[in-house]
Amino acid sequence: MYSENPPGKKRATTLKDIAQATQLSVSTISRALSNNASIPEPTRLRVIEAAEQLNYRPNAQARALRKSRTDTIGLLVPNIENPYFASLAAAVQRRARRAGVSTILTNTEENPDLVNQALDVMDDQRLDGIIVVPHLQSADKVAELHARGVPIVLVDRKLKDTGIPSVTSDPEPGMTAAVDLLTATDVSLGYLSGPQDTSTGRERLGLFEWLCVDRGITGVSVYYGGYRQESGYEGVRVLLEQGANAIIAGDSMMTIGALMAIHELDLVIGEDLQLIGFDDNPVFRLQNPRLTVIDQQVGKMGEQAFDLLQKLISGKGVVESVRIPTILHIHGSTAGSVQRRGRTSKS
Amino acid sequence: MYSENPPGKKRATTLKDIAQATQLSVSTISRALSNNASIPEPTRLRVIEAAEQLNYRPNAQARALRKSRTDTIGLLVPNIENPYFASLAAAVQRRARRAGVSTILTNTEENPDLVNQALDVMDDQRLDGIIVVPHLQSADKVAELHARGVPIVLVDRKLKDTGIPSVTSDPEPGMTAAVDLLTATDVSLGYLSGPQDTSTGRERLGLFEWLCVDRGITGVSVYYGGYRQESGYEGVRVLLEQGANAIIAGDSMMTIGALMAIHELDLVIGEDLQLIGFDDNPVFRLQNPRLTVIDQQVGKMGEQAFDLLQKLISGKGVVESVRIPTILHIHGSTAGSVQRRGRTSKS
Repeated sequence: MYSENPPGKKRATTLKDIAQATQLSVSTISRALSNNASIPEPTRLRVIEAAEQLNYRPNAQARALRKSRTDTIGLLVPNIENPYFASLAAAVQRRARRAGVSTILTNTEENPDLVNQALDVMDDQRLDGIIVVPHLQSADKVAELHARGVPIVLVDRKLKDTGIPSVTSDPEPGMTAAVDLLTATDVSLGYLSGPQDTSTGRERLGLFEWLCVDRGITGVSVYYGGYRQESGYEGVRVLLEQGANAIIAGDSMMTIGALMAIHELDLVIGEDLQLIGFDDNPVFRLQNPRLTVIDQQVGKMGEQAFDLLQKLISGKGVVESVRIPTILHIHGSTAGSVQRRGRTSKS
Repeated sequence: MYSENPPGKKRATTLKDIAQATQLSVSTISRALSNNASIPEPTRLRVIEAAEQLNYRPNAQARALRKSRTDTIGLLVPNIENPYFASLAAAVQRRARRAGVSTILTNTEENPDLVNQALDVMDDQRLDGIIVVPHLQSADKVAELHARGVPIVLVDRKLKDTGIPSVTSDPEPGMTAAVDLLTATDVSLGYLSGPQDTSTGRERLGLFEWLCVDRGITGVSVYYGGYRQESGYEGVRVLLEQGANAIIAGDSMMTIGALMAIHELDLVIGEDLQLIGFDDNPVFRLQNPRLTVIDQQVGKMGEQAFDLLQKLISGKGVVESVRIPTILHIHGSTAGSVQRRGRTSKS
């Protein structure tokens, strides 16, 4: 940033400048600034005063070469405009800040190539460790860093058979309660599935299908989407055409897209169709009726991911993957199910 | 990250390792890897092959000491959970990525101390430049970096009299249209104001007050809030109690909070009260009726901020601050105003 010293602009203060100003040697300055015991206190204070007056900033890169910690971690999220990942990032950063650790955040745009590129950049920066939401296509790169001893924690999505610790949500309790709530009455169930190159997309779809088989639910429609608004928007139209009237969305972004399509079609949620969203985010609380949602407790996930990474970095304690249960919060968007359930005996 | 070499974990490959493997000197390896013309091509290829086999990663920190560019910029936003700032960050990152530049994002939690701390960290990292959403309390720190020649661009908020280039939105066209739309009929106007330690909070409130004086609008209520959901939630209740029935929210987060309170009170937007939100974000498109909003064109703001920073970094071309006009998008949440305006002659 300053190494070119453009004319007319001040360059950064170096140890040499402080040496000139104090008439001391550069090595004395260096030792004084690193609190070396060989430097008498009056000299140390003189050096610090001169350094402050000259606006000296130690060079972090040079320092990092000698020091093992940068007190900075990296965080890779796939889409910062997805409120679920924004909340995850905010939770990690808050927890990190309280531990005196800075967080470098990168948005990988749901693109595995960008995940791999960003991991390379972060590896180069010699951060203390990395928290990443991976794609299956990032498995090799993540495993390579892990094998080289880079402290790395997966969050939201895991990578099978890599042995890399992860913090993920367990869809089972929330999804089971959702399916059981909707199918307590005679509905046609539909599911907006996430992408199959993510562990979450696969696991949630597998669970949904297993629940349908286990409960003997038939006439089920599945739309194979992605973690994008457009998928929810298109998907809900396809599912409605296929006759579905009770729909579960497999993530936040598809829930937003589904709401857009439903509002456009002027359907009344909770009456014309039942809808269960994914993630407890403010957007869904603002719906009228408020959305019934499968809550992943994203704040807890971010905190646990940071705590796991800290353990890995310190090398203390056993680091084990964490599963956080999902919870179904029931609100007005499934009111039809509840009402009809009360009337089951009549119909 | 690897300097401690914990037992049982592989340490990073060094130039020495490549020298040993190839039976060449470290200085030859170094010159070969930096494409020095003094190294014959077969030797260079031999070194690169060995480097790849040994999984060598050049040390970014050491490299940065010799090289003037890191191809990485910093971006400081006050609240990543605010959809407006999430969109701003995504726009900057997309534009930067296309230019081959990585973006390091930090969330400063609307806390001026954290802005100052984060600026220090980024300064240490010798990034190519920094884009920051400042508080007035960060003016000194930002001006100090600017004076030392650090390429720095302000976005969303500016700092008066610092001469630092900025990309901000001009509230005038959108706010004027909003006030005129609502007051075309006989309403009681209310305004949810942002914090007065930000240029945007001050400018928007000043403009609103000026418009009221200019138009001779009386009986106006103002709630002095912050850029937080809670402010919108509390503020809208206070404004309603004071008799306001046509409310403009001064930012995204207060709009979200206002919607929460209005839904809780079971008021029908567009009938019981008119509401104009700030920022064109998906949340407001999902309201039924869809919200009338003052749009800041946040995508354009992010792109322009990156373009300005690139100009500063390259030292080419004149760098001038940019103002992007706000636009009022009229939807159902102000339908009452439009209807009543049609009936003005009758009332």
